[in-house]
Amino acid sequence: MSKWIYRFDEVSQPDPLLLGGKGSNLADMTRAKLPIPPGFIVSTAACHLAFANEGILPEPVHRQIGAAMRTLEQLTDKGWGRLENPLLVSVRSGAPISMPGMMDTVLNLGLNDETVEGLVQQTGNPRFAYDCYRRLIEMFGEIVLGIARDRFRHPQEGRHLDLDREDVSAEQLRDLIAQYHAIVVRETGRPFPHRVDDQLGRAVEAVFRSWNTPRAKTYRAVHNIADGLGTAVTVQCMVFGNLGDDSGTGVAFTRDPSTGESRVFGEYLPNAQGEDVVAGIRTPKPLHQLAEAMPACYRQLLTVCRQLEDHYRDVQDVEFTIERGRLYILQTRPAKRSGPAAVRIATDLVKEGIIDAKRALMMVEPEHLEHLLHPTIDEEAGITVIAQGLPASPGAACGRITLNANDAVHRASRGEGVILVRTETTADDIHGILAASGVLTSRGGMTSHAAVVARGMGKPCVTGCDALSVREEENACMIGQVRLTEGDVISIDGATGRVMLDAVTVRPAQLSDDVHRFLQWSDQERMLGVRANADTTEEARLARSHGAEGIGLCRTEHMFLREDRIPLVQSMLLASADDERQDALERLYALQHTDFYGILKEMDGLPVTIRLLDAPLHEFLPNLEQLAARQAELRVRLQYDPASESLRESWQETADLLNKVKSLHEHNPMLGLRGCRLGITFPEVYEMQVRAIFDAAVTLRREGLHPQPEIMIPLIAHAEEFRRLRMLVDRTAQRVFEQQAAEIPYLVGSMIEVPRAALTADAIAAAADFFSFGTNDLTQTTLAYSRDDAESKFLPVYLRDKLLADNPFAVLDEDGVGKLIAMAASQGRQANPSLKLGLCGEHGGEKRSISFCHRQQLTYVSCSPFRVPLARLAAAQTALSSELGKG
Amino acid sequence: MSKWIYRFDEVSQPDPLLLGGKGSNLADMTRAKLPIPPGFIVSTAACHLAFANEGILPEPVHRQIGAAMRTLEQLTDKGWGRLENPLLVSVRSGAPISMPGMMDTVLNLGLNDETVEGLVQQTGNPRFAYDCYRRLIEMFGEIVLGIARDRFRHPQEGRHLDLDREDVSAEQLRDLIAQYHAIVVRETGRPFPHRVDDQLGRAVEAVFRSWNTPRAKTYRAVHNIADGLGTAVTVQCMVFGNLGDDSGTGVAFTRDPSTGESRVFGEYLPNAQGEDVVAGIRTPKPLHQLAEAMPACYRQLLTVCRQLEDHYRDVQDVEFTIERGRLYILQTRPAKRSGPAAVRIATDLVKEGIIDAKRALMMVEPEHLEHLLHPTIDEEAGITVIAQGLPASPGAACGRITLNANDAVHRASRGEGVILVRTETTADDIHGILAASGVLTSRGGMTSHAAVVARGMGKPCVTGCDALSVREEENACMIGQVRLTEGDVISIDGATGRVMLDAVTVRPAQLSDDVHRFLQWSDQERMLGVRANADTTEEARLARSHGAEGIGLCRTEHMFLREDRIPLVQSMLLASADDERQDALERLYALQHTDFYGILKEMDGLPVTIRLLDAPLHEFLPNLEQLAARQAELRVRLQYDPASESLRESWQETADLLNKVKSLHEHNPMLGLRGCRLGITFPEVYEMQVRAIFDAAVTLRREGLHPQPEIMIPLIAHAEEFRRLRMLVDRTAQRVFEQQAAEIPYLVGSMIEVPRAALTADAIAAAADFFSFGTNDLTQTTLAYSRDDAESKFLPVYLRDKLLADNPFAVLDEDGVGKLIAMAASQGRQANPSLKLGLCGEHGGEKRSISFCHRQQLTYVSCSPFRVPLARLAAAQTALSSELGKG
Repeated sequence: MSKWIYRFDEVSQPDPLLLGGKGSNLADMTRAKLPIPPGFIVSTAACHLAFANEGILPEPVHRQIGAAMRTLEQLTDKGWGRLENPLLVSVRSGAPISMPGMMDTVLNLGLNDETVEGLVQQTGNPRFAYDCYRRLIEMFGEIVLGIARDRFRHPQEGRHLDLDREDVSAEQLRDLIAQYHAIVVRETGRPFPHRVDDQLGRAVEAVFRSWNTPRAKTYRAVHNIADGLGTAVTVQCMVFGNLGDDSGTGVAFTRDPSTGESRVFGEYLPNAQGEDVVAGIRTPKPLHQLAEAMPACYRQLLTVCRQLEDHYRDVQDVEFTIERGRLYILQTRPAKRSGPAAVRIATDLVKEGIIDAKRALMMVEPEHLEHLLHPTIDEEAGITVIAQGLPASPGAACGRITLNANDAVHRASRGEGVILVRTETTADDIHGILAASGVLTSRGGMTSHAAVVARGMGKPCVTGCDALSVREEENACMIGQVRLTEGDVISIDGATGRVMLDAVTVRPAQLSDDVHRFLQWSDQERMLGVRANADTTEEARLARSHGAEGIGLCRTEHMFLREDRIPLVQSMLLASADDERQDALERLYALQHTDFYGILKEMDGLPVTIRLLDAPLHEFLPNLEQLAARQAELRVRLQYDPASESLRESWQETADLLNKVKSLHEHNPMLGLRGCRLGITFPEVYEMQVRAIFDAAVTLRREGLHPQPEIMIPLIAHAEEFRRLRMLVDRTAQRVFEQQAAEIPYLVGSMIEVPRAALTADAIAAAADFFSFGTNDLTQTTLAYSRDDAESKFLPVYLRDKLLADNPFAVLDEDGVGKLIAMAASQGRQANPSLKLGLCGEHGGEKRSISFCHRQQLTYVSCSPFRVPLARLAAAQTALSSELGKG
Repeated sequence: MSKWIYRFDEVSQPDPLLLGGKGSNLADMTRAKLPIPPGFIVSTAACHLAFANEGILPEPVHRQIGAAMRTLEQLTDKGWGRLENPLLVSVRSGAPISMPGMMDTVLNLGLNDETVEGLVQQTGNPRFAYDCYRRLIEMFGEIVLGIARDRFRHPQEGRHLDLDREDVSAEQLRDLIAQYHAIVVRETGRPFPHRVDDQLGRAVEAVFRSWNTPRAKTYRAVHNIADGLGTAVTVQCMVFGNLGDDSGTGVAFTRDPSTGESRVFGEYLPNAQGEDVVAGIRTPKPLHQLAEAMPACYRQLLTVCRQLEDHYRDVQDVEFTIERGRLYILQTRPAKRSGPAAVRIATDLVKEGIIDAKRALMMVEPEHLEHLLHPTIDEEAGITVIAQGLPASPGAACGRITLNANDAVHRASRGEGVILVRTETTADDIHGILAASGVLTSRGGMTSHAAVVARGMGKPCVTGCDALSVREEENACMIGQVRLTEGDVISIDGATGRVMLDAVTVRPAQLSDDVHRFLQWSDQERMLGVRANADTTEEARLARSHGAEGIGLCRTEHMFLREDRIPLVQSMLLASADDERQDALERLYALQHTDFYGILKEMDGLPVTIRLLDAPLHEFLPNLEQLAARQAELRVRLQYDPASESLRESWQETADLLNKVKSLHEHNPMLGLRGCRLGITFPEVYEMQVRAIFDAAVTLRREGLHPQPEIMIPLIAHAEEFRRLRMLVDRTAQRVFEQQAAEIPYLVGSMIEVPRAALTADAIAAAADFFSFGTNDLTQTTLAYSRDDAESKFLPVYLRDKLLADNPFAVLDEDGVGKLIAMAASQGRQANPSLKLGLCGEHGGEKRSISFCHRQQLTYVSCSPFRVPLARLAAAQTALSSELGKG
């Protein structure tokens, strides 16, 4: 017969796929003689069995559970379902990959109208015993029986107990239990199950079911966890943290998860059950206060933490309960940590000789390095602090106050910055946290839901801000004495816990020495070069300070689109005479010269890839629809006031401009007159840009610097386009060199961002020095997804309905776009063995896409300056992984 | 030493690449003892030599020309450059592939101030001799010396001779020659060359140069002739058609090139040089009048025509000159012919046992079959004939009068139909003819420039319309008594020569029995199936009558876009309540049921591929820009008239509609919410369509017919999209079958029109019954060319500058799009060996693209009903070619 159940003390080695992460750890810790309450695991195999059987566990599994319960009775000398010394158990989920807070838990199983009296005798604390029973009915009702939680919260109008207050009597609780029983009957048509085996079996099934709740699915989608894994369930003897002041419950991190500092860090609630800490309903005390309250327990906890860290060679997140002065460890897992903490912990563990640098590199999520670069507040620019909370997730954020998750998504989709302001958050708010720039809650601690989720996502978060009181029905909140309404702007600083009025000035982050050392380890391991996308001197400087080995993409249209230059570009486009156009071009030349001079100087000695003008022409012109409206308006005004000369003139001017804009209008500008098509149609614009680049480079050369310009031609679809424009570049460069009597080494390369370019890469490579895969455009054309339209129209539906696993604009579509890249890379190298290959789309800063680039043996990726450290680490990790794969 | 020169009588076999088409033929005819004036060929090798030497022929070539001239002196007993019995020669181009009228010719070489007196003595006709000399100086001046022609036309102000009038005296001509000599000195700084070897050598070089004139390049671009071929030149003894009434010149076709009728057909001009016929300056006489004027010559001509046709096994276009009663053949070549003539000639030659059916199939250009389908005029609908000209190229056309080629291009680019109306056309008008729907000229015959070019392009053309007088300076023309200005609409009937006022009603063509027989021969040879694109019952009927083996593409959005249905579609989209939307859907269902019933009935027993809704939603809504203008207008009116309730209501309505339209607006609709993305986002629309298809099919099945619906899902990019929508189709079909207690066999397939679909074809094929390559969209995305934008913006520049050889929307881009198709076809077949493969873009009706489909072993192509015969023939020709290639 198959084995579905594993006792903690009979597991010989961890097997998270079968036993779940939590179950594996509990077994592990049991073997290590740590103070673990006894229990057993219902395996993921049983979970799959239940899913295949409409959620119901077959009888053989129930029988094995029964046998395991009998062993627990022996181990604890308590009785399951018995009045005397009753055995109570918890049922918790334990998935192969941790999903904190996402799935259900049922506590206090084993209580019924009889055994509760046994618990009263056992503990001598009727108030506690009835409260346990009350909690069981409420949790079982909600999770197993599907009764909405608020049915229990307001059992009778006009009689609502504040159950956390100590002055609720045992009598009142007993009355409440009677009411709860009635509620169960009313809501489900059947009484609460008094048979303890029923309670246990149905609780296990319910926890399995919770794998498929929408919030769990969302979490897995966000964190890329496979739906098919399923979960295990642990059944464990209950220990009670709410038996009085010599009891309590808490969470300990073996190091500080915000800073990485090497000291045990955590929180606890005296006289409370574990769920009270996680739910953030009561604000917990810092762990060091436990040293005063229960010094022995505190010392034991420190020892256990050291043991755990040595055992797992990583920082642990430990749940513990103290029952009447006795410490129990309920679970341990690798601690979620902030970006700075992740790097510090990894480097400290290397310094302490616990791990080597390679293991350290694998311990930091690449995204964490992006968090490190979160801007901080410029204190000198003047800030108005209106409240102080807990520093739950570092980083500064400004945004409009938004009081619920749906509104946050809505505002964010309009491009607004949002601070999600809540009393507390729950798993139902995840989409709102995802959409917000930052989160502020009035309740909860450093390990509350809001804090854990925000840290995971790298969002600034302030929790436990007592001065905050949310008034949802008024669309407003009070922060201290200040009343703010939805839409008002505030700022939060997740590193200090401060809440500020209005938007504050933020400063880019500085990388610590630890981070630099860590990134140097990365650089030793990675094969892939890392460059940055930068359009200004400032961005270039930032990129260099983050370790970029050059600029992979400098978008010259961003220079054209600056507000002060648009009129020049317009006069170039709209010029009625050649000399007028020439004049505009000369003035643009002067500005571009300054642009290129600054960037090339900043990147002295490193390659700078400059892409010639790419944007559709009409992007530089006024909006067609507004212009049509304006013209209609003027026409009507002129009808009412036919004598007005100024109206007539305005009307005529608008009409002329409208005609010009119409003539440049395109139905599908992404597929229109842009990129190299501009260079072919208006060669004078590209000539001007190339002249500005080489004039600037020659000037720098004279100053003793070593500019390395690489000219990149966008939107190539045919080799002949590239050949002709390369001739234009070479000719213009030669002319500059002759005039200036100087020579600068340079490269000319092609963007590969049109499928046809990838399909005919051999012909293009024969004439090109390098390729750069423009994966934003290549994704657009290969999938026929207009980025703007798709992300606001059908893409959300596709992601929701799992037609797509990832947004292809965020994570490279390897099956489609990737195939083209692989083809082009291999054909290109064959035609031109010295061809350099880069990638400069958004994907250049995304870890899975970076791994793809490594596997394709590209020369470099180029990404936002803020993502350069991420890319350095991701490139190292993928190199290490393939090394492991080979070994 | 290399041989550059070949005498006609020393060539043993044709070699058009070396000798040119004309030279090969002349040598051939010389060998066949036909009456050919003696001469020799300067080969294409000499042409390449000249091009490599800045256009100058090296001395050895000149020496070989000199030797050949001495042989001509011996053969003719005339003297080159001698006063007594002077030898005159012509220099003509002769390219490997004929380019009629495109390149230069110089006649009467060998005349100078001395030898002209010899010609006076030789002919006893001083007026003729001086006219020859005058023509030489004019032609030599223009072609060799580059003097603009009008310098000769107006040599002195106030003294302009009408040189074609007979009352110009020899004296006057001699004066003119003196003036011409002065013009040559003034324009070039040197005298007209009197050394006859100089004349000849420089004329040969000039004709070589004319290979590279813009008009010749345009012609080659239009007709896909390689620029690298170069041309040969023939030097031939002059014979004179202008020595009096017993002389003349003309063109004979061995069969009628308009109808294919088996009778010698042509035109001649008495007492004229050959150039006068081709130039269309004088209107020639029909050839049968030669039978009366010079019966012996006429009989000899008929015999020669028979000889030529037997020799070449094809209809010949023969240039002849009669010099004082003696017939000379100047050149022969395969005759350009109209579509009907091509088919009739091919079938007649088979009937006459001259060729077999396979050769006949190779003798007809596939495009010719499209010409056959040109609509004719519905005589009963009432027409106003205002003039009668020559029926120069069959077909009926309506359009706006346009008096010059540039305006024709301009108007046509705005989508207007254009009739190009000219006194005569020249090679400089080609782009105008290409743009026009039809051509009308006042001068010229059936073999004039306009007629030849229009027939080649399959455009209706009427020439020699004496009643027409063009007044370009007034932007007007008189046709008989009617004065019409540019932009007025007329119609022409190229089959009868009629010119009509306004637009006439046209009727689709009927295919003759000859054509049907010819197409049956095609069907025996081809491997590729041919289906039609049809959206209505009428189109389906037409398609079937043209031999379509099914419908390869029925576009349901065309059904939605019918004027009477748009309000229904709008109310479906804009419905504020579910039942409102459901109501609109039900009404659309009823209409679609009728659509599908009609089409499936028409195609009984043949497959009908129905594509589910593809168009972007906002196509069904009002224009955004107009709506914005309308709203602005109403807003201003309301400011002036604030009390008006009706204005306020209109304004509110417009504002609401504007918001809705904005919310559906997309930046790049081609890459937006359309195709299967509609089906995923609004499944109820696809469900409605599928229900209508199967309900209609079941109804037909009950009537004893055999509907074969094939459901096609557009814009698939991911296999998962296809799988889900296939489930929707299958589920809906099953529901219909259950309700109706009937079953219809059907297929479900995927459009392959997004690069990603081609790249992941194996996964899609595993779930699909067929693929249909949508090459319009696939071209758009693979090349990143928005069809609308590209064709009006950069594509014309690309084609002009030869960045592209062909418009990729007309001729399939084999290197790019073709590679994706080949990949998808092979992967698809591997994943699903029973997969059917079709192609349904515009390219399905283009011969080179059809050849590609044959080579990829696709199952079928689908094209416009009008192109079905073309596709049948093209498929046969490509099959025959590959058979030959193998043999």
